[in-house]
Amino acid sequence: MQILITGGAGLLGARLARRLLERSTLANAEGVPTPLTRITLLDVVPAQSFSDPRIEVVTGDIGDESLLQSVLTPQTQSIFHLAAIVSSHAEADFDLGMKINFDATRRILERARQNGNCPRVVFSSSVAVFGGTLPARVPDHQAPTPQSSYGAQKVMGELLVNDYSRKGFVDGRALRMPTVCVRPGVPNKAASSFASGIIREPLKGLAANCPVPPETPMWLISPHFAIENLIHGHDIDAGRFGYSRVLNLPGLCTSVSEMVAALGRIAGPEAVARISWEPDPAIMRIVNSWPGNFETTRSDAMGFARDADFDDIVRRHIADEQARP
Amino acid sequence: MQILITGGAGLLGARLARRLLERSTLANAEGVPTPLTRITLLDVVPAQSFSDPRIEVVTGDIGDESLLQSVLTPQTQSIFHLAAIVSSHAEADFDLGMKINFDATRRILERARQNGNCPRVVFSSSVAVFGGTLPARVPDHQAPTPQSSYGAQKVMGELLVNDYSRKGFVDGRALRMPTVCVRPGVPNKAASSFASGIIREPLKGLAANCPVPPETPMWLISPHFAIENLIHGHDIDAGRFGYSRVLNLPGLCTSVSEMVAALGRIAGPEAVARISWEPDPAIMRIVNSWPGNFETTRSDAMGFARDADFDDIVRRHIADEQARP
Repeated sequence: MQILITGGAGLLGARLARRLLERSTLANAEGVPTPLTRITLLDVVPAQSFSDPRIEVVTGDIGDESLLQSVLTPQTQSIFHLAAIVSSHAEADFDLGMKINFDATRRILERARQNGNCPRVVFSSSVAVFGGTLPARVPDHQAPTPQSSYGAQKVMGELLVNDYSRKGFVDGRALRMPTVCVRPGVPNKAASSFASGIIREPLKGLAANCPVPPETPMWLISPHFAIENLIHGHDIDAGRFGYSRVLNLPGLCTSVSEMVAALGRIAGPEAVARISWEPDPAIMRIVNSWPGNFETTRSDAMGFARDADFDDIVRRHIADEQARP
Repeated sequence: MQILITGGAGLLGARLARRLLERSTLANAEGVPTPLTRITLLDVVPAQSFSDPRIEVVTGDIGDESLLQSVLTPQTQSIFHLAAIVSSHAEADFDLGMKINFDATRRILERARQNGNCPRVVFSSSVAVFGGTLPARVPDHQAPTPQSSYGAQKVMGELLVNDYSRKGFVDGRALRMPTVCVRPGVPNKAASSFASGIIREPLKGLAANCPVPPETPMWLISPHFAIENLIHGHDIDAGRFGYSRVLNLPGLCTSVSEMVAALGRIAGPEAVARISWEPDPAIMRIVNSWPGNFETTRSDAMGFARDADFDDIVRRHIADEQARP
C-alpha cells in the first residue's frame, strides 16, 4: 500500500511517518489492515532523518501540478494532506494562503478524482474555522464563521473534501485539530506558536514571550494524540461519519494560566520566570476568535482520543525531547 | 452610480433591474441614496424588454475573464451576483457547477478587489447550503452541511464574500434566499422548480407534476419580497452584519399540501386536479435535505421582510402575470 503525506517534513507529517513505520499497516479501501510499501513525504524542504527504504522524500511545492502528478498516482491509496500556510502567515499574505490552503487542496482532490481509485484523504483542518460570537462550549453543529483567511480557506477545503466524498470521487475525512502543543523545534508564523513557545523555550532555559493574557482559554492536543487521531480518522469506516465528513476532534480545555502553572509544577518557578507577557494585538485578535471548549459528541462516539491534563502534555514533551535522536 | 447584475436576464435579475429603474437610486459607499446612471445586465442570454437608456445589456459567460474586465470596472460601485448553475444541474455536471458557482464568484470578487474601489457585492446564496440532520427550526448559528454540490459551492462563495469583506477588498453581503415561488416562465433544472410549477402551470390550465410528497415542508419567498430583500441587503449599513456577512433571510414556512390548498381556494378544485403526484427520488433526495423552517433572528432584527401567507403569494403571482407587458 502506497501513501502520500503532504507537509511531510513538518512536525505532524514527519511524526506521522515515524508512527506509520512502527505500525507498518493502514486500513485499505475495504478497511483491512494492509502493509505499507511506500510512504512519500512531500514538502518544500526535505524531510530529515529517515533511513527506512519504505520512505520516499520528495522536495517541491504542492502548487506545482506536474510534481503532484508524479507523487499522486493511481497506486496512491491514501493521502494525509497536512501542508498549509499557517494562520498569521495566511493573514499577512492572502494570495499565498489561497494558493496553498485552498487551491492546492482542490488540486490534490481533483488529481485523486482523475486517478479513479477513490483514495482515502485525511485533511487536517483546524479550530480556526470558528470565530465571532460563540457559546462557551461549541457544539458539533456550530456554524464556522472564521475571522481569519486561514480559517476561511480551511472551511472551503472541508467543503471540497465533503463534496468530493459525497460524489464518490475520494473517501475523505476532514479533521478539525485543536492547537497542537507542545510543538518541538522553533517558533513558526502560526498565531498559536506562543502556546508551544511558552513551554518549550523555558524548558530549554530560553526566554519566551506570551502575547495573550493568562486567562485566554486554549483547546489543545499533544503531538502524540494528534497523530493517533489522524491515523484513527484514516482507518475508521466511512459510514461512521454519517452525512458530514467534517469533524471537531476532542481536545483538552485549558487556559494559558493553567498551562504556566503546570510548567511551574514540573520545571519549577525559574522556568515560569523565563516567560514575559508583552501583548501582541494582532495575535490576540486571531487567538481570541478561537473557541476554548467543544462538546465533540460525534468524535467522542467515534473513538477519537484526548490528553488527560496539561501536566501530561508537558511530561510527554520532555520525554519526546529526551528520546530525540 | 454604475451597477452590475449577473444573471441579469433571469427572473430575479430582470425583476431587480425593473425595480431599481422605478426606485432610481441605491445607497452609495457612504450609505447615501444615489441616482443610478447605468445598470449592466450580464447573462448568457440577452435580457429582454428594456428600453430605458440606463440599461446596458451584455451577453456572455461570467467564466470569461476579458468579458468580466469590460463589465466590472473601477466605476462599478455595486454588484448583484445572481448568476448560478441551479441545484439539479450542478449535481449532474459537477465541473460546470464549480466553474460558474464557485470560480466565477471568486473571479468577480478578485476583479472587484483589483479595481480598488471596495464595491458593495450582494451574493445570492440559498437554503440549499443546509442538509443532513437538522433541528425543526434552523437557528442562525447552524452549521451548513450541504448535501448537494450546488449547496457546497454556495457556502464556498459565502466564505469568500465574507473574507474579502473582512479584508476590506469588497463590502459584501451573502444572503441565503428561501425557495423563490411562484417563478414565472417555464420549468428549470432547479430541484425546487416544481414548487413554482405546481402553482403556475395549473393557473395556466396546464398539467404539472409534483415529485415530492404533500407533507414536504417548504421555506418560500415571493419574487416581490426576494427583490425587496436583495435591495435592503445592499442598502443596509455594513456594520449591521457584525462578524458575519452571511445571513439566513426570512421566509414563509409552509408545506406542499398547504400550497396546493391555497391554489384550490383561489383557483378552484379544477386547478388542483391538474397536479399529478409522480415521485422523483433524485429531486426528493435534494429537496428533503433542505430545512422547512428557520429562526432568522438576525435578519428579522435587520429589517428584512417576508410574505404573510401562501394565499398572498398566489394572488401576487396572478397580479404579476396580468400586469406582464
